[in-house]
Amino acid sequence: MLSDKFSFKLLKETGSARLGKINTHRGNIDTPAFMPVGTQATVKSVFIEDLMATGSQIILSNTYHLMIRPGVERIKRVGGLHNFMKCKLPILTDSGGFQIMSLSKLVQINEDEGAIFNSHIDGKKFILSPEQSIKIQKDINSDIIMVLDECPKMTKNKKVVSESINLSAKWAKRSKREFGENPKKALFGIVQGGIFDDLRIESLENLKKIGFDGYAIGGLAVGETQEQMFKVLDGITNHMPKNKPRYLMGVGTPSDILGAVKRGVDMFDCVMPTRSGRTGLAFTWDGRLNLKNAKYQKDDTPINNKTQLRDLNMYSKSYINHLITSNEILASMILTLNNIIFYQELMLKIRESIKNNTFNDFYNKYYNII
Amino acid sequence: MLSDKFSFKLLKETGSARLGKINTHRGNIDTPAFMPVGTQATVKSVFIEDLMATGSQIILSNTYHLMIRPGVERIKRVGGLHNFMKCKLPILTDSGGFQIMSLSKLVQINEDEGAIFNSHIDGKKFILSPEQSIKIQKDINSDIIMVLDECPKMTKNKKVVSESINLSAKWAKRSKREFGENPKKALFGIVQGGIFDDLRIESLENLKKIGFDGYAIGGLAVGETQEQMFKVLDGITNHMPKNKPRYLMGVGTPSDILGAVKRGVDMFDCVMPTRSGRTGLAFTWDGRLNLKNAKYQKDDTPINNKTQLRDLNMYSKSYINHLITSNEILASMILTLNNIIFYQELMLKIRESIKNNTFNDFYNKYYNII
Repeated sequence: MLSDKFSFKLLKETGSARLGKINTHRGNIDTPAFMPVGTQATVKSVFIEDLMATGSQIILSNTYHLMIRPGVERIKRVGGLHNFMKCKLPILTDSGGFQIMSLSKLVQINEDEGAIFNSHIDGKKFILSPEQSIKIQKDINSDIIMVLDECPKMTKNKKVVSESINLSAKWAKRSKREFGENPKKALFGIVQGGIFDDLRIESLENLKKIGFDGYAIGGLAVGETQEQMFKVLDGITNHMPKNKPRYLMGVGTPSDILGAVKRGVDMFDCVMPTRSGRTGLAFTWDGRLNLKNAKYQKDDTPINNKTQLRDLNMYSKSYINHLITSNEILASMILTLNNIIFYQELMLKIRESIKNNTFNDFYNKYYNII
Repeated sequence: MLSDKFSFKLLKETGSARLGKINTHRGNIDTPAFMPVGTQATVKSVFIEDLMATGSQIILSNTYHLMIRPGVERIKRVGGLHNFMKCKLPILTDSGGFQIMSLSKLVQINEDEGAIFNSHIDGKKFILSPEQSIKIQKDINSDIIMVLDECPKMTKNKKVVSESINLSAKWAKRSKREFGENPKKALFGIVQGGIFDDLRIESLENLKKIGFDGYAIGGLAVGETQEQMFKVLDGITNHMPKNKPRYLMGVGTPSDILGAVKRGVDMFDCVMPTRSGRTGLAFTWDGRLNLKNAKYQKDDTPINNKTQLRDLNMYSKSYINHLITSNEILASMILTLNNIIFYQELMLKIRESIKNNTFNDFYNKYYNII
């Protein structure tokens, strides 16, 4: 039965890999979990009811994008993002920190005021303080709210990163204060610190002192190698509270996810299954297929998706290749759905393998294939 | 029960409006019927099983587009277009005549060889003879095959039109010979003659002498006014065989369809519901809504689609406006489906009103609204 209160239960550990369950008043989330990305109040090219049928239990959306377009007022007016986009699943919203760094123009960071930036759409000026980000996420009616962090570009300059985690810690404290008491909702802190193990730990300890419902690892998937990313995880996850969910932001490929689960991560989000679906890439258990490739013109076999959903496996590679070549929207519709289904099957199999003590076998079997 | 043989039964007439039923070995088509357009082996931005749930009983596809891309071989290899695009509905294919005129470059018409043209995609040279068009349509495994006609641009030059119908009559004869005996399939002739009543009748009489399973009216929806189009219909439909389906090619708006049904037409195809769905236009029983319009930012009501299909009516105008503004594919998916549903509801209500002797009331009620 669903409790109104947000909570996390750690069910099992195999090595560092963890099986768990998040309770929200909108539904449970089995972890390790993958969150499809619905940046602009839609998971691109998927009907919301098809998304629910993929096994997705939560989606992610973006404060930065929503505040710029359509603007928070239109979402707040109908009671939040679930109503606006007709999503019955829990929603996690990113705070805007990452997009301000990666997308917007002329960013100035001011400790008191927050981030001052110009929209990447029309150049309009916005100011986002930690308090404002939390307020917006409450207006969006997000179920899992992220603190506003300063998210510097990948750098080897330790001083820059150190100053950044200090600022982020102050902002995290203000975010927590603004969040207040909201047992139905969760507030997650975001560990920064770049590729510096000691700064990562310092950042985490700052957050643990404040106390959050979950801990995210930010500032990865920004251009570092998988090896560097895994090294960061090796250095930090053992220090993270066991009884709280751990969320690796913006990650990743199937092998990234396998490696991060092995290192104790519970939650993931990434545009990879959706974005690559719009560029002709199909994830399968035999590896990725680039269906734009001319060789598929001669291949009348399906992409071997086992799902019954929308009978996706009835379409031949030759047909999908034709749809891509002809710029047909249906190509994006078929491949996006295929890829989300693949990701959710991956998460299901990961969870089953942890349960059955076969996670290492599963990892070894698929790490180099998918 | 379905018979293997193609046939048409005229069930009722109210004035000139006709209620009928086409039998094909793949399913019945209640007339007046609207055929969604699947130019490139997909009805744009609609899953085929959703299309079937709209009440569509037949779709149209285009020989010209398919022969250029993906090429006939890939379709023939899997047994035809139904298998290629996984469509269980009957398929009518246009012969290529109209697209050669409207899309391709450097067209030369040679009575013996056919149409010599360069592809609008890559400039590659093609020759399409009447025989070749029929052969391709058989390879596509089309259920209703159209003769290759010469389709001149709209002109007031009667001599040009007259020469054109003579050529088309010769090609129609050759098409019939190539079609041979195919009781499962149908071959339709195409009446040309521009806006000249006498040439239209001459063209029709030429075709009647050859004998076809159905008669199409071509060369309209090419820039003439609705009044001119209705005048052409007034002049020709009474001369058309009563016991064969009548198909007005490429038409049209809901009011075009109402007016053409009133004048005795049975079948229609048009890109309007699909194309306009991709540009933010929603057809409704209260008229068309341009959901790009900024006023819909403030409108949280649905577009009032009565259908249960995909629960389309759960989306607010403000949400759809946001999706359009943000170039989200979901906008095209929602509106295309809405519009096809509207068109099929329109056809259903037209058929019911003919059955109930209320067609004129229905016509008068909606002609100026939709």
